[in-house]
Amino acid sequence: LAAGGALPVDVASAAVAGGRKVLVIGLKGEADERLQAFPYAGVEWGQIGRIVQLMSDHGGREVVFAGTVVRRPNFRAIGSLDMGALRLLPRLVAAMVGGDDTVLGNFLKVIEERGFELVGVADVAPDLVAVAGAVAGPRASAAGLVDAGVALTAARAIGALDSGQAAIVVNQRVVALEAAEGTDSMIKRVGDLVATGRVNWSGRAGVLAKCAKPGQDLRLDMPVIGPRTVELVAEVGLAGVVVEAGRVILAERAQTIAAAERTGTFVIADDGGGPADQ
Amino acid sequence: LAAGGALPVDVASAAVAGGRKVLVIGLKGEADERLQAFPYAGVEWGQIGRIVQLMSDHGGREVVFAGTVVRRPNFRAIGSLDMGALRLLPRLVAAMVGGDDTVLGNFLKVIEERGFELVGVADVAPDLVAVAGAVAGPRASAAGLVDAGVALTAARAIGALDSGQAAIVVNQRVVALEAAEGTDSMIKRVGDLVATGRVNWSGRAGVLAKCAKPGQDLRLDMPVIGPRTVELVAEVGLAGVVVEAGRVILAERAQTIAAAERTGTFVIADDGGGPADQ
Repeated sequence: LAAGGALPVDVASAAVAGGRKVLVIGLKGEADERLQAFPYAGVEWGQIGRIVQLMSDHGGREVVFAGTVVRRPNFRAIGSLDMGALRLLPRLVAAMVGGDDTVLGNFLKVIEERGFELVGVADVAPDLVAVAGAVAGPRASAAGLVDAGVALTAARAIGALDSGQAAIVVNQRVVALEAAEGTDSMIKRVGDLVATGRVNWSGRAGVLAKCAKPGQDLRLDMPVIGPRTVELVAEVGLAGVVVEAGRVILAERAQTIAAAERTGTFVIADDGGGPADQ
Repeated sequence: LAAGGALPVDVASAAVAGGRKVLVIGLKGEADERLQAFPYAGVEWGQIGRIVQLMSDHGGREVVFAGTVVRRPNFRAIGSLDMGALRLLPRLVAAMVGGDDTVLGNFLKVIEERGFELVGVADVAPDLVAVAGAVAGPRASAAGLVDAGVALTAARAIGALDSGQAAIVVNQRVVALEAAEGTDSMIKRVGDLVATGRVNWSGRAGVLAKCAKPGQDLRLDMPVIGPRTVELVAEVGLAGVVVEAGRVILAERAQTIAAAERTGTFVIADDGGGPADQ
């Protein structure tokens, strides 16, 4: 089940490479066009009956969710709800009010009741998961490792609020915390803060941390960084990125590593025992 | 010592009303022009020697800091440093790297060493401090009180990171957390999130919470809301505001209350025992 971004392409490729018979069900308006190179069906928001039917016709048992959703569905999307969705409507409406995780959780219950098994991106494409240590780019400075530790602490604290997954720390000061705006938007905000003089530093300094929320179901929704994340981090003058090892995906891994090398941005993965030892 | 915004005007008025002999030392480019109705001297960033001289000449002993600083000083401001500042330069440079609180803390040490006593806005203008209970606007709904509790929890959690003082929660979901951008900018961001469809809700819902950081020196820097805060909250469709009783200032109190009544926005103050009982 593919939403936006390049990650679903990586996942579908890895699934085929792993010998699986793949059907990509892409969300219209979000799914990458390259996915149509695989056996493919497009669906609209709310076509839950159609999705279940497509999955049954395909004959597979494993389901993977991948990709990002830029726009959440709202009640204007009700015109595209099919009979499968209408039967679930009371549960979904209650869930939408509670946030995206709950919508996905309810949809998951439905497909599990139909005998399908949810598997994670990490199960189908394990090479995409960040492994502890230096991932790419230059060696982190001592100051960079301190900022990485502070940023991870901040990211974990807001994760515990079920808010965002990311934080930015420059010279030990927390300058941005993610909530509904998403990681890319939060990084761009730091560029605005520099432009307006609200924050300033000299040279490259500061770290973006990204980690999973404590209770996050990694089969449904695993945190992701990609080449664009690294490019944005470099554009606003941050020195590097730290991710939680084993719980964050490197989408477009080769391009992400190339972006880190090209822009001189360190990328490290922390295994929970403090900043990654290089 | 006056920076930007209307709060220093309220504080100077309250000090005069309380029988104090006042000298306002205003930061050029930030201080409100109305302050020049009081005995007044303007200073540039970094004129620490001049500030101490002005204070000594005036003969007073109590010092109050009030007002907001939109732009932090940076090293380009070094041209306006006077001899008093140059003597302190190593300490201040070290402090600037550590963030605003540390700069203020070091400046405070300097003026206390000269025999001055720092007093808080709350000491000079106690009527400006939020008192527990309903402050203004309509009665909060049950859902509003729940959001207020969740938002206060989030604001306290990020305060513990020494990040921001404010959070916004809509239907129990954390949609924005403040760090370096400031409260007004964070509220406006929620308007952008609604406009781009990343968050949505029907009617007025959601709450801005603002509180002091756990270790915050309230004599130096007390959190503030004002009429503009309430107007922005209403503009983005939030239902209300909750502040921490006894630790947040209502700047331009009458206008803040009028803004709450005019825009139908509840303003409540919580005394730490859960959402304010109305």
